[in-house]
Amino acid sequence: MTNRRVVLASRPEGEPSAANFRLETTETGALHEGDVLLRTLYLSIDPYMRGRMSDGPSYAAPVAIGEVMVGATVCEVVESQLPGLQPGQIVSAFTGWQEYAVVPGRGLRKLEPEKGPVSLALGVLGMPGLTAYTGLLNIGDPKQGETVVVSAAAGAVGAVVGQIAKLKGCRTVGIAGGPEKCRYVVEELGFDACVDHRSPTLYDDLKAACPAGVDVYFENVGGKVLESVLPRMNDFSRMPVCGLISQYNQTELPPGPDRTAVLMRAVLTRRIRIQGFIVLDYASQMSDFLRDVSGWLRDGKIRYKEDIVDGLENAPEALFGVLQGRNFGKMLVRF
Amino acid sequence: MTNRRVVLASRPEGEPSAANFRLETTETGALHEGDVLLRTLYLSIDPYMRGRMSDGPSYAAPVAIGEVMVGATVCEVVESQLPGLQPGQIVSAFTGWQEYAVVPGRGLRKLEPEKGPVSLALGVLGMPGLTAYTGLLNIGDPKQGETVVVSAAAGAVGAVVGQIAKLKGCRTVGIAGGPEKCRYVVEELGFDACVDHRSPTLYDDLKAACPAGVDVYFENVGGKVLESVLPRMNDFSRMPVCGLISQYNQTELPPGPDRTAVLMRAVLTRRIRIQGFIVLDYASQMSDFLRDVSGWLRDGKIRYKEDIVDGLENAPEALFGVLQGRNFGKMLVRF
Repeated sequence: MTNRRVVLASRPEGEPSAANFRLETTETGALHEGDVLLRTLYLSIDPYMRGRMSDGPSYAAPVAIGEVMVGATVCEVVESQLPGLQPGQIVSAFTGWQEYAVVPGRGLRKLEPEKGPVSLALGVLGMPGLTAYTGLLNIGDPKQGETVVVSAAAGAVGAVVGQIAKLKGCRTVGIAGGPEKCRYVVEELGFDACVDHRSPTLYDDLKAACPAGVDVYFENVGGKVLESVLPRMNDFSRMPVCGLISQYNQTELPPGPDRTAVLMRAVLTRRIRIQGFIVLDYASQMSDFLRDVSGWLRDGKIRYKEDIVDGLENAPEALFGVLQGRNFGKMLVRF
Repeated sequence: MTNRRVVLASRPEGEPSAANFRLETTETGALHEGDVLLRTLYLSIDPYMRGRMSDGPSYAAPVAIGEVMVGATVCEVVESQLPGLQPGQIVSAFTGWQEYAVVPGRGLRKLEPEKGPVSLALGVLGMPGLTAYTGLLNIGDPKQGETVVVSAAAGAVGAVVGQIAKLKGCRTVGIAGGPEKCRYVVEELGFDACVDHRSPTLYDDLKAACPAGVDVYFENVGGKVLESVLPRMNDFSRMPVCGLISQYNQTELPPGPDRTAVLMRAVLTRRIRIQGFIVLDYASQMSDFLRDVSGWLRDGKIRYKEDIVDGLENAPEALFGVLQGRNFGKMLVRF
């Protein structure tokens, strides 16, 4: 089968560009026992992909130069050497930026198209949803009546965090880029408030939106946004650190002064807990997550938005957009 | 009763000086029902006192100008209007930098001089010991075979942290100022290693002392020491933040670049937990602490060192010494 795929051509310095990718045409390999041939329907585009393009130390190995870019996908089974998976079935997989892939079939999650759009397995019912659910509940530990602040609130993870926090009885405040996203976060997602991180009055806007301070800050961004939330954080507040998108394209540290001392002083005097996590740490909570979030979706208690582009060749541009906050909703490439 | 006391005369800018204190002579007040008149035997000198001299936001109110400096004490009961407390009994109290005090007797902890030096109630069996015990066990959560690093390892808190970690089966590495303290930490306290934070090779020394990385970093210092430990911290490592003595006299933030991004990136990619605490948060664990640490002391499994100066008038200088790391062991003023 002729396969088009996007490989990493070179490592970016700072902002990635089209030159870091190469579109190739290859042939898919033969199927061995247990393998399936998958045709990609949707590819998820997520901020973590920027990390895989670099070879600095991280929680996951970088993509090698010349290798296909990684990514979660929703695929149709074209051919199967695994009993129990038939051609035509839809699965969620991790086949990356390509049209076809031959992979072991065991462990692939079968999707049920009759129950809802299969693309949700890449968003609210997939890795971003699980990230939101596990990070908020395990580390954020929100209690009824507390204030939960979420950065990148219109994004795939942030939108779910805020809606779950609301279901848990919290005052929920988003931070997003621009008035359109802020309006969406409040009017569509039901947050109590949303402040614009581009506003020159961000610090005061946050203060006004959080009259009782902040008990949980779900961190997706870092930088100036973190700096603005920190003074609002209450005694014994929690900060799950899920992402730091403002840092991913940095080639050097921001200018001084060194504000590490400010962060550490806040941690000490207000007994703040800051804790990083990645979704794989909580893979064992997948079934709880699917049960709860599917139910909330069915009951109309959780809403979502997708931002879809067509064609593998547009995947790089979609990633650049995500890194700059130009997407509006869960970013997907449709094949 | 004529009472000599040290009051806060002015707030320091940066390093405190003798001019910030004033030695006064007053009279003790009358005893009401339930009160006791106490004569100070020992005053504890601790880093947190620098915080009380400033009026920035913190977990505790500052000492007001003209008020007696706060501090934990061991006192003898001189007169009592509370049944159950008799003259001659020894108690631990919080009467501050003065020779006498009239305070409510209820809740004062009676000490047993026949069981050991009463000054221990200000050190290994007092607030510093409880700080070490609760911070290490609740937040550090050390497991057998893990590596625990402690800054200010020769200090009142650090010495106990390392010795408890050792009892829990951990590799224990101290960080202290100068070869004499480092020798003490290893030879007297039984740490596996100790590195000198003044050494130009601190970063490499730490790397050599922690071949399996760092699972718990008990933070007393901040600044360059934190910066040197951070790269060694393992996935899922924990950092109880107990103190930041390198910052207490800062009048402005250190020059750039802003390294906050380095800290946050480490937290995210290595899923580090950073959590501040103060000893009052764990007051309910006092009896567990006294049971365990008294037992370890009795069995010779925990050792300690006191650094004693005589006379209330030397208390300010003792505090300056503690803030600069000039003390060697638990700093006490004897009356």
